[in-house]
Amino acid sequence: MSTLILLRHGHSEWNAKNLFTGWVDVDLNEQGLAEAARGSELLAEAGLNPDVSHTSLLRRAIRTSEIVLNGIDRHWIPVRRSWRLNERHYGALQGKDKKATLEEYGEDQFMEWRRSYDTPPPPMPDDNEFSQASDARYADLPDELLPRTEALAQVLDRMLPYWYDSIVPDLLGGKVVLVTAHGNSLRALVKHLDGLSEEAVVGLNIPTGIPLVYELDENLKPTVKGGKYLDPKAAEAAIAAVANQGR
Amino acid sequence: MSTLILLRHGHSEWNAKNLFTGWVDVDLNEQGLAEAARGSELLAEAGLNPDVSHTSLLRRAIRTSEIVLNGIDRHWIPVRRSWRLNERHYGALQGKDKKATLEEYGEDQFMEWRRSYDTPPPPMPDDNEFSQASDARYADLPDELLPRTEALAQVLDRMLPYWYDSIVPDLLGGKVVLVTAHGNSLRALVKHLDGLSEEAVVGLNIPTGIPLVYELDENLKPTVKGGKYLDPKAAEAAIAAVANQGR
Repeated sequence: MSTLILLRHGHSEWNAKNLFTGWVDVDLNEQGLAEAARGSELLAEAGLNPDVSHTSLLRRAIRTSEIVLNGIDRHWIPVRRSWRLNERHYGALQGKDKKATLEEYGEDQFMEWRRSYDTPPPPMPDDNEFSQASDARYADLPDELLPRTEALAQVLDRMLPYWYDSIVPDLLGGKVVLVTAHGNSLRALVKHLDGLSEEAVVGLNIPTGIPLVYELDENLKPTVKGGKYLDPKAAEAAIAAVANQGR
Repeated sequence: MSTLILLRHGHSEWNAKNLFTGWVDVDLNEQGLAEAARGSELLAEAGLNPDVSHTSLLRRAIRTSEIVLNGIDRHWIPVRRSWRLNERHYGALQGKDKKATLEEYGEDQFMEWRRSYDTPPPPMPDDNEFSQASDARYADLPDELLPRTEALAQVLDRMLPYWYDSIVPDLLGGKVVLVTAHGNSLRALVKHLDGLSEEAVVGLNIPTGIPLVYELDENLKPTVKGGKYLDPKAAEAAIAAVANQGR
């Protein structure tokens, strides 16, 4: 039996501004810092002590994991990071206002970009101020691997190799694994774990700051489908709120 | 040519209380947080961008590295940690007041424990509240490796394998390496790098929060003995102050 803890970072500076973020490296805001502290409390109450921490390369996930681990005296565990756990690349929408985008393109197009399984937004031009084409943290990535836009399908494709090569060995080694990441990289992982259909994952929301705990059997199948939120009531309320985001 | 940046964490809660700390995992205080922020500024001004971060398993070094890297937009670089970079284990003195210890044991004994190259203080009993014998972070360490007390000689012995096995490969790979650690683990490393005698290292003080930069040749010998502090004036003043610590 292995324990996998998924944690979506909390609110960032661009949540408050209602901008599409994706791979833009914005920081947590005060609410996000408080959500991280709350996530830490929930792990402490549950007596869950991660042995290893995996994060994306984005500050909002990294800081969340640091705050969570510091709060439960596990600041010293090994840390691994990968671009493969990054948020979905939101293409040319990155840096754009969500409400203005909804008004400009209409509800159908807007919802297709936000929620379709495999239709990505238009690609981000490399010379845009919100492009990551010249970002030092991806300098070692062959150009053909660096996304310019993604739908959830592409997130799943680039996340899975990290799951298999880096996270699974930790789980099979008996470690309690914390993965601190983003709405869409975690949705992709949950789709894989729970065997969700493309239709089902489109309707899945993962709330921020509430650890989602999976107990996995020896084949790394969840013993309880969907896992277990450490604060189920708060999770339920938050899921409803996320579904209305951007309106 | 390789670049190695050494950084000693700043003041902790026990500096202010004048207690021997060693392996006790106390946090930075406000001054220590400010020192970390200043260290970050100095790296930014020097245009130094670490590619990989090595830290001890102690919170004051880990937090310092997080603050420093976050401040220069390098929060995403790979992180490696080891107990081999920990502060000197101060034996039975851990948790004791420095002034009271000086009065109890007298100047000669006090200075021998603080400054002799190879005379460790009495060992820390495993049942003492400031022992690390039951600390989860060392659970994978065979008991005979876990120190109960150390002099600088023992710190050098347990630090060097990490230098050779984990830091040197990064340097030879052309990476800019940041090592955030402690007064004595860094003194041990500097002794090795600069080929200092046992007598010379006894008189060496490394100030807190000021990055010390070594450019190393292809044999990993310093091109300038003693390296270069990024704020030489502040380093000089701090070295004088550390020499009087505990009086």
